[in-house]
Amino acid sequence: MKQSKLFGKTTKEIPKDEVSKNAELLIRSGFVDKLMAGVYTYLPLGLRVLKKIQAIVREEMETLGGQEIYMPALTPKDNWVKTSRWDEIDVLFKLQGTGDKEYALGSTHEEIVTPLVKKFVNSYKDLPVAVYQIQDKFRDEARAKSGLLRGREFSMKDLYSFHRNEEDLADFYEKSKQAYLNVFKRCGLDAHIVEASGGVFSKFSHEFQVFTESGEDKIYVCNSCGRHQNEEIVENQTLKCPYCGNDRIIEKSIEVGNIFELKTKFTTAFDFTYTDEAGKEQPVQMGCYGIGPSRVMGSVVEVHHDDKGMIWPESMAPYQVHLVALGDDEKVLAQAESLYQELIKSGVETLFDDREVQAGQKLNDADLIGLPIRLIISSKTLDKNFVEMKKRNSSEVELIKIAKVSKLFTK
Amino acid sequence: MKQSKLFGKTTKEIPKDEVSKNAELLIRSGFVDKLMAGVYTYLPLGLRVLKKIQAIVREEMETLGGQEIYMPALTPKDNWVKTSRWDEIDVLFKLQGTGDKEYALGSTHEEIVTPLVKKFVNSYKDLPVAVYQIQDKFRDEARAKSGLLRGREFSMKDLYSFHRNEEDLADFYEKSKQAYLNVFKRCGLDAHIVEASGGVFSKFSHEFQVFTESGEDKIYVCNSCGRHQNEEIVENQTLKCPYCGNDRIIEKSIEVGNIFELKTKFTTAFDFTYTDEAGKEQPVQMGCYGIGPSRVMGSVVEVHHDDKGMIWPESMAPYQVHLVALGDDEKVLAQAESLYQELIKSGVETLFDDREVQAGQKLNDADLIGLPIRLIISSKTLDKNFVEMKKRNSSEVELIKIAKVSKLFTK
Repeated sequence: MKQSKLFGKTTKEIPKDEVSKNAELLIRSGFVDKLMAGVYTYLPLGLRVLKKIQAIVREEMETLGGQEIYMPALTPKDNWVKTSRWDEIDVLFKLQGTGDKEYALGSTHEEIVTPLVKKFVNSYKDLPVAVYQIQDKFRDEARAKSGLLRGREFSMKDLYSFHRNEEDLADFYEKSKQAYLNVFKRCGLDAHIVEASGGVFSKFSHEFQVFTESGEDKIYVCNSCGRHQNEEIVENQTLKCPYCGNDRIIEKSIEVGNIFELKTKFTTAFDFTYTDEAGKEQPVQMGCYGIGPSRVMGSVVEVHHDDKGMIWPESMAPYQVHLVALGDDEKVLAQAESLYQELIKSGVETLFDDREVQAGQKLNDADLIGLPIRLIISSKTLDKNFVEMKKRNSSEVELIKIAKVSKLFTK
Repeated sequence: MKQSKLFGKTTKEIPKDEVSKNAELLIRSGFVDKLMAGVYTYLPLGLRVLKKIQAIVREEMETLGGQEIYMPALTPKDNWVKTSRWDEIDVLFKLQGTGDKEYALGSTHEEIVTPLVKKFVNSYKDLPVAVYQIQDKFRDEARAKSGLLRGREFSMKDLYSFHRNEEDLADFYEKSKQAYLNVFKRCGLDAHIVEASGGVFSKFSHEFQVFTESGEDKIYVCNSCGRHQNEEIVENQTLKCPYCGNDRIIEKSIEVGNIFELKTKFTTAFDFTYTDEAGKEQPVQMGCYGIGPSRVMGSVVEVHHDDKGMIWPESMAPYQVHLVALGDDEKVLAQAESLYQELIKSGVETLFDDREVQAGQKLNDADLIGLPIRLIISSKTLDKNFVEMKKRNSSEVELIKIAKVSKLFTK
């Protein structure tokens, strides 16, 4: 992509009303635009990142055995009344349409997926089954001041699994933990499994937490036995670990995923049973598993940035290479254009800064945008047919022969 | 994919309250599930089709020069008040949130994209620019009885282009027609460009219409000069073509896309101007271009089906090959399993009917689901190491050597 044609521009202006680092950097770099509090438009660079995260999530959910579906955001009131959550969920957006029909905008989809799966499951032979979607959720958050970390509209992957008994659910639940850790690792996040409040039927749910100073959550971390707890379930705020007795420390943290053993909470509400081998009706056991791709995007920015800008992991960078032509020497521009074409042809995702702006602005913007590799072509390197290569996460500069560049990045 | 594990089942039951053929077949085949009038869940087979259509649309929009973005569905009232459409659009879903903040669910996105693009365009050098999104729209349709043809929530591709003057807009508008015809051709639809009512600034808009008996629109078709008109703009209902004077015929039709020269209608409302070469402020000219991928999916079913079921074009079939094992002979099952593995390994998208059901049901379901190629393995063909191949759109049956099958479909 030629940067002169790219929709979305960098700006030095710090956005008003944005206190979070992720919103500040994503807006300043032209990755997203703020429509209103908690509601963002993804510009081309930001959308590329979001799609890469979604693709990673999709791959790991498929490996886990999930089948992708796509449920609506517009959902009928009746389903929410059946579970009492029409009144219980305070962030539920409600609306009314033609014929006084009442709807909720899905803030989560247990109320839709449970009766849906019920339609296709009769016997024990139809279980287990796991379905997931990557879809936009709506939550009327009172405070939406954390950029992509807490949106009123945001991207969510929600998987739901259905089982014959608690053992099968527990087994799948354990497997899901590994799938989740894989997702976060691939996204460059060091996520920790943390016990959190569980709801009606299970003692705990589990959260995936990334320890970082800008986090809103507080986690009691036991570095001895490795079992961590969210502040919300810590009794008497004790620093002594309830499992091994050693001292714990408190870490600030961002929640990037959570999983719940819902057991029969929703299947009972929708009268969802199956016939076992003996012909007897049995309750279906259910779990739910959430990751917010947009929240992951915000979290990665919170964790991976410096005072110059963002530092994208390769796996989710919008482009791998930022090719920057410095100066207005015709030969430099021609050489850069030719290298750009060669990189594109070799399948290397390249952003080419061909804009008519000062060198300083180009270098600052490259730092702000934070692609993994920066290649600089200037009159200084031109004669020797070299290009300067610098990784965003390192200060070392290497000189590379232009003829060898595209091979370096071809996998 | 093994059909025994596939989420979503075929049914012989004709869905209640569905009068359209597309909804009947898509529900009976397990491609979609109806949540309520005009609101559907995409099950795995249906979602695969929808994504293939979206991918075709995306490719053609990129070729046209569009850059993909993603705008929110939740939009602030103010933007709609500025254009007077808060009151004018009768299908707008409106809702209220925390702090009495009022929102509309996007039924279209001129009100969002115009101020967005304004932020990044100052000078003539920033024009032209075209952005598009593939995103879900919401419309509170009074009658939502046409399946995927008229949804209350539906998939939409909306592209918006911005230009320095009317000539540049007109030039892009003409190019968009070809991009649209490419999309429909690739989706197996024979679309015709039809003049329709234009709105404020341009005499006509243009619709892309597929002539078919189940269509809701009536088109005055001139087979002499090729200029067709929507009934809504035909003066005195005359069958005489206003362009060439020859007789026209009337065709029932489904609208699958539409394009508008909006000119300055929205840019004026948002005070969106640019500075020309002489330093003078000029109004920005705008066009908008819509295709509904979910509507395309419904239209293809309306056009491509017979009394046994759907007939998917290769380009959007959820799988290319339906491998069907008949009978419960262990050898047949082993051979089918081995061929399935080989097809998968060769990259052939294959649905393998490994279910323990009667041959008749398998064959009926294969016709209903409508994949392009059906391969049958049975004890009849087993000994000779043959497989029966039949195309969904033909009645001819061919015998193919099993060893040669996977090569047939590898591109």
